[in-house]
Amino acid sequence: MRIARFSIDGNVAFGAVEGEGPDGLVLDIIKGIPYAEFELSGTKVPLSKVRLLPPVLPNKVVAIGRNYAEHAAELGNEVPDVPVAFFKPTTSVIGSGDAIEYPSFSNELHHEAELAVVIGRMCREVPRERVKDVIFGYTCANDVTARDAQKREKQWARAKGFDTSCPLGPWVETDLDPHDLTIQATVNGEQRQLGRTSDMVRSIEDLVVHITEAMTLLPGDVILTGTPAGVGPLHVGDEVAVTIEGIGTLTNKVIKRG
Amino acid sequence: MRIARFSIDGNVAFGAVEGEGPDGLVLDIIKGIPYAEFELSGTKVPLSKVRLLPPVLPNKVVAIGRNYAEHAAELGNEVPDVPVAFFKPTTSVIGSGDAIEYPSFSNELHHEAELAVVIGRMCREVPRERVKDVIFGYTCANDVTARDAQKREKQWARAKGFDTSCPLGPWVETDLDPHDLTIQATVNGEQRQLGRTSDMVRSIEDLVVHITEAMTLLPGDVILTGTPAGVGPLHVGDEVAVTIEGIGTLTNKVIKRG
Repeated sequence: MRIARFSIDGNVAFGAVEGEGPDGLVLDIIKGIPYAEFELSGTKVPLSKVRLLPPVLPNKVVAIGRNYAEHAAELGNEVPDVPVAFFKPTTSVIGSGDAIEYPSFSNELHHEAELAVVIGRMCREVPRERVKDVIFGYTCANDVTARDAQKREKQWARAKGFDTSCPLGPWVETDLDPHDLTIQATVNGEQRQLGRTSDMVRSIEDLVVHITEAMTLLPGDVILTGTPAGVGPLHVGDEVAVTIEGIGTLTNKVIKRG
Repeated sequence: MRIARFSIDGNVAFGAVEGEGPDGLVLDIIKGIPYAEFELSGTKVPLSKVRLLPPVLPNKVVAIGRNYAEHAAELGNEVPDVPVAFFKPTTSVIGSGDAIEYPSFSNELHHEAELAVVIGRMCREVPRERVKDVIFGYTCANDVTARDAQKREKQWARAKGFDTSCPLGPWVETDLDPHDLTIQATVNGEQRQLGRTSDMVRSIEDLVVHITEAMTLLPGDVILTGTPAGVGPLHVGDEVAVTIEGIGTLTNKVIKRG
């Protein structure tokens, strides 16, 4: 099932995405919240009439750096012995269709297309064989990065945590084998990144074990699993799209911060 | 005013701390929430009868590394050109009296006594002269760190973000000039860290400007302002106390993770 969060006429709801093609998609409004028991209301609204919101409300976003060998190499980095884990704050999360605001402290904004794992259950110290039980679904993410600030600043709170730096969406796909999917980024329709999730250095299972060895994950928390090769600049006016096979396309325009 | 958050008989409330000395302290229960309009109810409970909770419910905790020159030097680091900013997740926050759980992935846990700034208003791009207007108050923090993991792992999400790694408390002091206060840590009553907030490399004003240049802060968000020299190991069974002049003492025992 594909679960979107959206607003229509000022009301916010979750809905199941049904139908095919950009014009035929409708949202069947969900009664309750997706992480617990829920049912479909049968009340449907066309996707074209709503504003998509971030499909989850994370308590935290844990992101992983240098998890595709070709991408590590393109920035002159080695694949680390231990996964590089950092946080993006909730204030950085936006949905598909929302604007990425070019931050004032950077002149080198980069896109990073990533598969995002959405957690469905409170969990800690998850054994490898139980990882599938704590995952709710998958969505597309863009780990937007101020590359110049990332180089200057030893820890990445600003470079990867500024407002609007974490587009998520368009919805969460709950029925998906995530292990060998194409993942790509385009800028103004031109392909920039192309990879396969099978090229991750550490698997989703590795990452959930590694993160939950240290900390509790809560329903709605998100893990960004790293970006394949091809990262590059974004400029004001660009439209960046992240597409993952079996999920959909997350699209955001870059604007000047107002 | 000193504002604590606490539970008593299963109910959670904010209260103003009144009186003197460990036996004379009472909490005047607050009607409403402290960041908005509130009044004191006049209903008082002895502090000794409650369980203190973290005095704030942050959306995010932004912490600053290497902000006291002597501490940077003791770990063999230089004072950085740009502040080192990182996040501690909300799942790491505990209150005074709660236990620090020794994480399984570390054999070198360290205390780091820090002055914590509590934000009172939603804000971004705060000009230096307006910083005082966005601060609600101050509390004590312990930026508990798995030093071995910090050395191994390039970004510090696990080393400084594991569950229970962010003790805050005992309460928020709203009437305080934070610029020249003694800050100390003791372990089992023995002094380990001693410094003055006047020795910060970057002032609180600098830090708020730096952080909000990138991201929105929300009421209840917390900034940890760095630790003075004297950091050192914590072992299971230790009691660590952070005391800041004009605020009070944050006390936590270290236990084996259950």
